[in-house]
Amino acid sequence: MINKVNEVKSFGGRQLRFEHQSKVLNCAMQFSVFLPPQAEHQAVPALYWLSGLTCTDENFSSKAGAQRVAAELGIALIIPDTSPRGDEVPDDPDGAYDFGKGAGFYVNATQAPWQQHYQMYDYIVDELPALLEQHLPLTSQRSISGHSMGGHGALVIALRNPERYQSVSAFAPISHPSQCPWGKKALRGYLGEDAQSWAEYDAVQLLQQYKHCPPLLVDQGSADNFLAEQLLPETLAQALQHLPKDAVASLRYQAGYDHSYYFIASFIADHLRFHGQYLNR
Amino acid sequence: MINKVNEVKSFGGRQLRFEHQSKVLNCAMQFSVFLPPQAEHQAVPALYWLSGLTCTDENFSSKAGAQRVAAELGIALIIPDTSPRGDEVPDDPDGAYDFGKGAGFYVNATQAPWQQHYQMYDYIVDELPALLEQHLPLTSQRSISGHSMGGHGALVIALRNPERYQSVSAFAPISHPSQCPWGKKALRGYLGEDAQSWAEYDAVQLLQQYKHCPPLLVDQGSADNFLAEQLLPETLAQALQHLPKDAVASLRYQAGYDHSYYFIASFIADHLRFHGQYLNR
Repeated sequence: MINKVNEVKSFGGRQLRFEHQSKVLNCAMQFSVFLPPQAEHQAVPALYWLSGLTCTDENFSSKAGAQRVAAELGIALIIPDTSPRGDEVPDDPDGAYDFGKGAGFYVNATQAPWQQHYQMYDYIVDELPALLEQHLPLTSQRSISGHSMGGHGALVIALRNPERYQSVSAFAPISHPSQCPWGKKALRGYLGEDAQSWAEYDAVQLLQQYKHCPPLLVDQGSADNFLAEQLLPETLAQALQHLPKDAVASLRYQAGYDHSYYFIASFIADHLRFHGQYLNR
Repeated sequence: MINKVNEVKSFGGRQLRFEHQSKVLNCAMQFSVFLPPQAEHQAVPALYWLSGLTCTDENFSSKAGAQRVAAELGIALIIPDTSPRGDEVPDDPDGAYDFGKGAGFYVNATQAPWQQHYQMYDYIVDELPALLEQHLPLTSQRSISGHSMGGHGALVIALRNPERYQSVSAFAPISHPSQCPWGKKALRGYLGEDAQSWAEYDAVQLLQQYKHCPPLLVDQGSADNFLAEQLLPETLAQALQHLPKDAVASLRYQAGYDHSYYFIASFIADHLRFHGQYLNR
C-alpha cells in the first residue's frame, strides 16, 4: 500500500509524493516520484536517485531540474528518503548531521540500537522496487544514481546487484568510505568495529573484488570542499582500472564546480541521457 | 559598493550572492546574480526576476533551473529580495506572510511606519540597475519577469517604464491588486485608504490607461489555488485587449499547473527565449 500525499504537474508529467509503512525499515516513510507523460499510457523504466547527508526526498525533487529530460526520455524518477524516520527511530545522541536520521548510508545495520530500523540497503534494493513496480506504471528496468552519501549508495548497490540495474552514475560520491571520516563513523556505528564487514559497502573495495559493474558515469567537481578528505575520487579512479578494457566507465572532473545542487543541476541532463541509452532498450 | 558573499559555478557561469547598503531602502540588502559564461569577456544584457510572497533571492536561484538557458543565451539573471530587511525595518505586527518583510509588493510606501524602508519600486527601477551596471559586466539592456507578487511587480514596472525594459513576462501574476484581498491589504497598508493612489501599482488599470507596453508573455496555471480569488487573470486578459493590434502580448493558460516552482521550472526556458529575442539586439 502506498498513499499519495501530494501531486503537482511538472514538465507535462506528474511530481508525486507518497507515504507508506515500510516493513524493512519498520516505520512510516515518505518518498517522491516523477512520472513522465509517457507513463500515462505505458509502463516506463525508472532511475532511482539516492540523496546525500541531511537530505530528504524533496531536495532533488525541487532543485536538480531532472524532470525536464526525464519527461523527454520517458524515464520515471524514484527519490527515496535518506534514513528511517519517526519518533520511534533512534537518532544520533548528539544530533550529528552525519549519523542517524538523514544519514542512513544505505547499509543494513547490525548493531543495536540501529538494526531495528536502519536497513536502507534492503529498502532500496528490494522493498521499494517491488512495491513501486506493483503500484505504479513502471517496467522492471532500473538504473540508479545519487549524490555524495547517495553516490556511495548508488555505486555499492549497482556493483553488488549488476543484474538488477542497467546503469549507474554518481555525483561526488563517497567512494571509499572505509578510508574517510564520514564513512568510518557511519560504518563503525552501523556495522561495528570489524572492518571486514565494511567492505561490502565500499565501492572501491567492491570494484577491486568484482572487477565488473554496469555502465558507469561519475562527475566530481574540482572545487568541492569535501574532495580531499571525504570523497577520495583518486581511489575510485584507480579502482576503475580493475574493470575490463571494454567496460563503459567514466570519471569526469568538472573544473570549478562545488558540492551543491548547482553542480548537480548543471550535469543531471548528461546523467539522464547516459542512463537513457541503457534503460530504453 | 557591493560585496560578494558567495560564488558557485553553475552551467559554466557564476551564481553569485552580494550584499550592499541600499540608500533607497535605508538598510542592508542581499541579492543574487547569475552571470553566464559570455560575461567573462563581454558585457551582457540582464533579466530581472521579482519573486513572490515569503521568498528571498534564493528560491528562484535554486529551484527554477533558469541558469541553463540563461547560460546558453548569454543573459544575466538579477534576483533581488522581496522587501527591505533587518532588525530596524518594521514588520507586520501579527507576523502575516502577506505584508511587511517578504511582502514589499514593489511599491514606494507613503504611510508611516513603512515609508522609511519600503521603497521597493525605486530600488528595482533605479538603484539596483545603476549599481549593477556600474559594478558588473552588464549592458543597459534589461528585461523583467516575476512570479505572483513579483509578476505584479514586473508588469507594473514594465508598463510604467517601457523605455527601460525590452520585454516583460510573468508567471501567475497578481494582475489586479486593487481588486483582490492580497493586493487591497498591501496597497491600503503601504499607500493609505485613497484607492486613487493604488492605480499606478495595478497592471490592469495601467493597461487601461497607457494602452502600450513592451513585448509581454504571461503564463497562468489552470490548477493554481490562488487563481480565482487573488490572481484574476481574466481581468488581465480583458485589459490586454486595450493594446494595439500589432502588440506582442500573450496570456497562456497552462492546463493542470499549480502556483509552485514546479510550474515556473516547466516554462522558464520559454520565458528566457522570449526575452532573448528582444535583449540580444
